[in-house]
Amino acid sequence: MSKQILILPGDGIGPEIMAEAVKVLEVANSKFNLGFELSFDDLGGAAYDRYGVPLADETLDRARAADAVLLGAVGGPKWDTIDPALRPERGLLKIRSELGLFGNLRPAILYPQLAQASTLKPEVVSGLDILIVRELTGGIYFGKPRERTTLENGERMAYDTLPYSESEVRRIAKVGFDMAMVRNKKLCSVDKANVLASSQLWREVVEEVAKDYPEVELSHMYVDNAAMQLVRAPKQFDVIVTDNMFGDILSDQASMLTGSIGMLPSASLDVNNKGMYEPCHGSAPDIAGQGIANPLATILSVSMMLRYSFAQVAAADAIEQAVSQVLDQGLRTGDIQSEGCRKVGTVEMGDAVVAAL
Amino acid sequence: MSKQILILPGDGIGPEIMAEAVKVLEVANSKFNLGFELSFDDLGGAAYDRYGVPLADETLDRARAADAVLLGAVGGPKWDTIDPALRPERGLLKIRSELGLFGNLRPAILYPQLAQASTLKPEVVSGLDILIVRELTGGIYFGKPRERTTLENGERMAYDTLPYSESEVRRIAKVGFDMAMVRNKKLCSVDKANVLASSQLWREVVEEVAKDYPEVELSHMYVDNAAMQLVRAPKQFDVIVTDNMFGDILSDQASMLTGSIGMLPSASLDVNNKGMYEPCHGSAPDIAGQGIANPLATILSVSMMLRYSFAQVAAADAIEQAVSQVLDQGLRTGDIQSEGCRKVGTVEMGDAVVAAL
Ligand SMILES: CC(C)[C@H](C(=O)O)[C@@H](O)C(=O)O
Ligand SMILES: CC(C)[C@H](C(=O)O)[C@@H](O)C(=O)O
Repeated sequence: MSKQILILPGDGIGPEIMAEAVKVLEVANSKFNLGFELSFDDLGGAAYDRYGVPLADETLDRARAADAVLLGAVGGPKWDTIDPALRPERGLLKIRSELGLFGNLRPAILYPQLAQASTLKPEVVSGLDILIVRELTGGIYFGKPRERTTLENGERMAYDTLPYSESEVRRIAKVGFDMAMVRNKKLCSVDKANVLASSQLWREVVEEVAKDYPEVELSHMYVDNAAMQLVRAPKQFDVIVTDNMFGDILSDQASMLTGSIGMLPSASLDVNNKGMYEPCHGSAPDIAGQGIANPLATILSVSMMLRYSFAQVAAADAIEQAVSQVLDQGLRTGDIQSEGCRKVGTVEMGDAVVAAL
Repeated sequence: MSKQILILPGDGIGPEIMAEAVKVLEVANSKFNLGFELSFDDLGGAAYDRYGVPLADETLDRARAADAVLLGAVGGPKWDTIDPALRPERGLLKIRSELGLFGNLRPAILYPQLAQASTLKPEVVSGLDILIVRELTGGIYFGKPRERTTLENGERMAYDTLPYSESEVRRIAKVGFDMAMVRNKKLCSVDKANVLASSQLWREVVEEVAKDYPEVELSHMYVDNAAMQLVRAPKQFDVIVTDNMFGDILSDQASMLTGSIGMLPSASLDVNNKGMYEPCHGSAPDIAGQGIANPLATILSVSMMLRYSFAQVAAADAIEQAVSQVLDQGLRTGDIQSEGCRKVGTVEMGDAVVAAL
């Protein structure tokens, strides 16, 4: 029973970090007898260059057929001036939507070895371990109408629509509660119910789902307050569940609290826990091709894939331990560099994880 | 030529902090011969209790007739369960909209005397002085349709609309550029142009307005990245201009970077610089009535009013200096308390500012 993994290295540093993640995945594959078969394709700018679109139909078919997708990162200045409908990000949004990957898990974890990398005071962030559950296939990202028009007076005008249905909110709320159940049983739902109709429905439905999770302590917070609380006292949070747009903003804010976004993986899951896994950071075109990017977030995305899509807990744990070990050894890429540690490049870091594994 | 100031103390700690701000305003009034006449009314929950609506027509008429409005804060648990259309916030949104207060200025300044109050490391925030310019009367806060419907399958569904017209973007962009011109000539426009149609128009129009401000260095940033950069390196910013929703989130995040949101005033201006002035913090119902709230943000809102609506620079400076002086004296309310300083209550703090003035 072999399992198919589709690898999409993407743009910028994507191919470099993915090469290391693939090395790690292959070692885990044989060591734990996972029976994975890897195939490769393009997404984003790389796909535009090859297929003329940021996500080709054949790539989408392959992604549908695969048991999991591993993605590097997409985007770069090279494609900034092309038709907006063909830009790299559109490929990312399309694959999320077409595969129904509504449940986006974005952990923000402070690695004890990297505590000093945070811009926040140690006492505020030490031990930080938050999980942001972001709705990924609905809301204002996909709402219609999304239009450009002209007013009667000749003025240009544009609008977007932020819709949520009961079932969309319910399924992501469930993910939030399920995650809280296997963590510290605290869920904070973030919305803007004092202004938005969609948020009022969101809050209502989250309250309904809460009835099935009496053990979970549920709270609601307005998004502006959540952005403040993440700065003031981030450790008050366990799991945060929120909509697509708020999740985009808050997950990036939360990841930066750790000071080491180069360490953070993410998962995007469908109703059957089939998923796409990718680092939280972007394609970093400014350092692409220099062999200095941090591959650990992509390597940890492999571990997340093993855990969530294949329930291969031992293999997932082993990769995480290997990463922890190379940090203990004092190896650091430039983004997490600190005094007394040895600065290494992308390949050397990947090799070290392989060796530790 | 007397000037009319309408005072709206609001809810929670509003009346307490406003009492101190009014004392300061009255001293400045006679000392600088400002010719201000003050009148008082209610907004938010207080208005609901008195008039049955969070903003009465007669209050709105008074606000229109006034030369400036000074607001405390609105909201509280007492009104959490009433008809959403009558909640305190609706009064706030209505007065903003009816008075055409589209230009919201929210400074995030770290007072050197309070440097240790921030949760960020001193080197990251020392000297922080950002101005967030938020569009306040458009976008998803006021877009129509905003509806609750039922799908054919019986599911509940709700949606909001995020519209922007060219002229709405142009006038707020101008405020951003004008502010940058009198500061460090750096403007960062924040949007989500890789996803939203409204953001694409936003970016286009900001670029057009930029032609009239060749001296200002303009940059564009996606909102998720802005939320990260505010954590990573907030001092890279001078002026940020952004839409209503993003401005709500980012201005709260930025204010919390200073660790002393109890110190931050804000202004909301119309096309003629007529304005409403209020502290950035909320009504803090948890500490209302205890005489411990920090009145300085409201006192500094008086200073902002003198500066922006009345061009009374000397009086505005004097109030700011008086505030700085009481901080130098080591007086602190509970929210900004630190070792070696003297803890004072709301009234004592107000008296100290009056004395320094
Ligand atoms: C590239 C962009 C469209 C995307 C998003 O906004 O979802 C990214 O910021 C992310 O968070 O994965
Ligand atoms: C109370 C609420 C409606 C308001 C807003 O979202 O604008 C507040 O958060 C603010 O920022 O002034």
